[in-house]
Amino acid sequence: MIEYIPGLAGVPATESAISSIDGEKGILAYRGYPIDELVKHSSFEEVAMLLLEGELPTQQKLGEFKEILHKRYEVKRNIRSMMWSIPCNGHSMDVLQTAIASMATFYPDAGAARPDSDYTQNALLKIISNMSTLVAMWARISRGYDPIPPSKNMSYAENFLHMSFGEEPTEEIVKLFDACLIIQAEHTINASTFSAMVTASTLANPFASVSAAVGTLAGSLHGGANEDVLNMLDEIGNAKNARAYIENRLKNKQVIWGMGHREYTVKDPRATILQKMIAEYVEKTGVVLSERFETALEVERICEELLSEKGVYPNVDFYSGILYAEIFKFTKEHFTPIFAMARSAGWVAHWHEQVSHNRIFRPTQIYVGSDFRDYPK
Amino acid sequence: MIEYIPGLAGVPATESAISSIDGEKGILAYRGYPIDELVKHSSFEEVAMLLLEGELPTQQKLGEFKEILHKRYEVKRNIRSMMWSIPCNGHSMDVLQTAIASMATFYPDAGAARPDSDYTQNALLKIISNMSTLVAMWARISRGYDPIPPSKNMSYAENFLHMSFGEEPTEEIVKLFDACLIIQAEHTINASTFSAMVTASTLANPFASVSAAVGTLAGSLHGGANEDVLNMLDEIGNAKNARAYIENRLKNKQVIWGMGHREYTVKDPRATILQKMIAEYVEKTGVVLSERFETALEVERICEELLSEKGVYPNVDFYSGILYAEIFKFTKEHFTPIFAMARSAGWVAHWHEQVSHNRIFRPTQIYVGSDFRDYPK
Repeated sequence: MIEYIPGLAGVPATESAISSIDGEKGILAYRGYPIDELVKHSSFEEVAMLLLEGELPTQQKLGEFKEILHKRYEVKRNIRSMMWSIPCNGHSMDVLQTAIASMATFYPDAGAARPDSDYTQNALLKIISNMSTLVAMWARISRGYDPIPPSKNMSYAENFLHMSFGEEPTEEIVKLFDACLIIQAEHTINASTFSAMVTASTLANPFASVSAAVGTLAGSLHGGANEDVLNMLDEIGNAKNARAYIENRLKNKQVIWGMGHREYTVKDPRATILQKMIAEYVEKTGVVLSERFETALEVERICEELLSEKGVYPNVDFYSGILYAEIFKFTKEHFTPIFAMARSAGWVAHWHEQVSHNRIFRPTQIYVGSDFRDYPK
Repeated sequence: MIEYIPGLAGVPATESAISSIDGEKGILAYRGYPIDELVKHSSFEEVAMLLLEGELPTQQKLGEFKEILHKRYEVKRNIRSMMWSIPCNGHSMDVLQTAIASMATFYPDAGAARPDSDYTQNALLKIISNMSTLVAMWARISRGYDPIPPSKNMSYAENFLHMSFGEEPTEEIVKLFDACLIIQAEHTINASTFSAMVTASTLANPFASVSAAVGTLAGSLHGGANEDVLNMLDEIGNAKNARAYIENRLKNKQVIWGMGHREYTVKDPRATILQKMIAEYVEKTGVVLSERFETALEVERICEELLSEKGVYPNVDFYSGILYAEIFKFTKEHFTPIFAMARSAGWVAHWHEQVSHNRIFRPTQIYVGSDFRDYPK
């Protein structure tokens, strides 16, 4: 009898070569490359290829890959029509889950039977590219506007900002957004990735798997935490109120949003990168952020003082919300879809890995219900 | 370090009170009631209530429940419109995954924060009832016909047959179909149910969870197996060819579709019930089936001779395809959606159980990839 561990915490569910974490040193690496190196030298497109294929592409391969993405940003007219049928207050993650699932009906031959065929590989790239168009499209359609068509010569990051706002973003903003996409592209076996793997393990198609992952990411315990951080910072109001607020929440055993992560006993490397990027951007451009950033820094200082013995440090959600809201000017409901868009690179890599060495996920249960009984006559 | 077991086979992932299996005696029970008792005495509606609420309802409660279902069969016009945007050759499971996900946008307050509220409970019933309408609707829309509206006074089984074919089914057919729904309504922690639980574990809404489960059920290793059984029987052609075919496949270590199940070392009780029901129906009505049924019986006999030492016996998929194709006259692409429709009762019960005693599913991995390395300069 194998021990029952709620949430399968610490239970190995797969062998994987996609990403790795050193939780004591605070390192997250994709295919061996630490993310701070990738943020410095790479691009989201290159990272997506790295995750999918295992190695960095040559410049020529990368160029071809970008061209393929350019051809794939366009969303089918029928899927766009479907989005117009959805109530304008529909949550963007529900809409995204719907749209990705519907894509399977247009690519019936993309599947686990031939995971390495050009057709299936193209479908995986179609998911990564369409994700950005769908997220930007719903931001427009939900407000009653026609979507802004994708560009044929912008990078993934720039094109998304363009489709979202209809403006040419500055080079600094594009670089910053590209970095956000890179650091959220993959993170070993989190709940949404595991969900994609469970779906893939019946040899379901990649659209079905990624749609399931979107649904899982939408839950408030997973992707939604960066919204909670912003709400918390707004509730605190300013840096001076932080200590009383934190002490009070700790006394009442309440969560401090954006603090702590099962995988890290030091600060989440993604939080370190985001915090540094925000500070550098502010210094370089002279942009004035609201008090949220100062409040966040103060919350981090206080938590370090009170919680670092327990290995509780900021995680990626702690600074990503501020960045999205204050610098890119996204409204809160778009934070998690942006996360999903970045993570789609990791999800498709895990879909491919899963179906390539597959065993169906069928764990068992501890039955705690009624004994066998007869139907009352 | 916990041992790595591929597919988490035999690893307990939850405590559950919904259903139980005695694999040696060949018993499957819902909330303690063996399914052969339920097939004899109950109805799909009553079984759905039993699964959700834990006890058999009183006659009054059951009557109220049926009335609620009658009010909930209708599908929103906008979702119907979405289905007209999907290519007519779209696979019915992809369409179903899409439609269920989209329902979340219409019921934004149904969720894990209030799993016992009337609003959320109604959403769970909306899923069970709409499932049948959506499956029948796509069977019509995909062939270019307007859907047949649901009835306000038929049972779940009868209403579905009515919406699928536009004819009043005989009492025998309704009873048989109701029995099919009962025996497929729940089956402990199979891959699709586990998928629903993983999604639910982030406190995602029930539509997101059930949509994920539909995607998982669609995979060829799970719900699709009854199609494979029919294809195999057609390939065999007739009973006389069965022995050579089976022996040849075993020699080449190929799967015999519909044979064997991780949970049973004897014949799957659902296969026993289905086989008996087919035989009784044939005897009672004098209907003449194609050679498939005789071929299947012969395949079972040969497999019993060759494989019973290994505990390999027919599972539910072995006879369900024959029943669907030969008696109800469904085409193959509708087998798995019918399975999904029945199983939706189990899925929503598991969604509710999961969010009521939740721990997020976040297993871990055995990293087998590249060591940390520097980005090439």
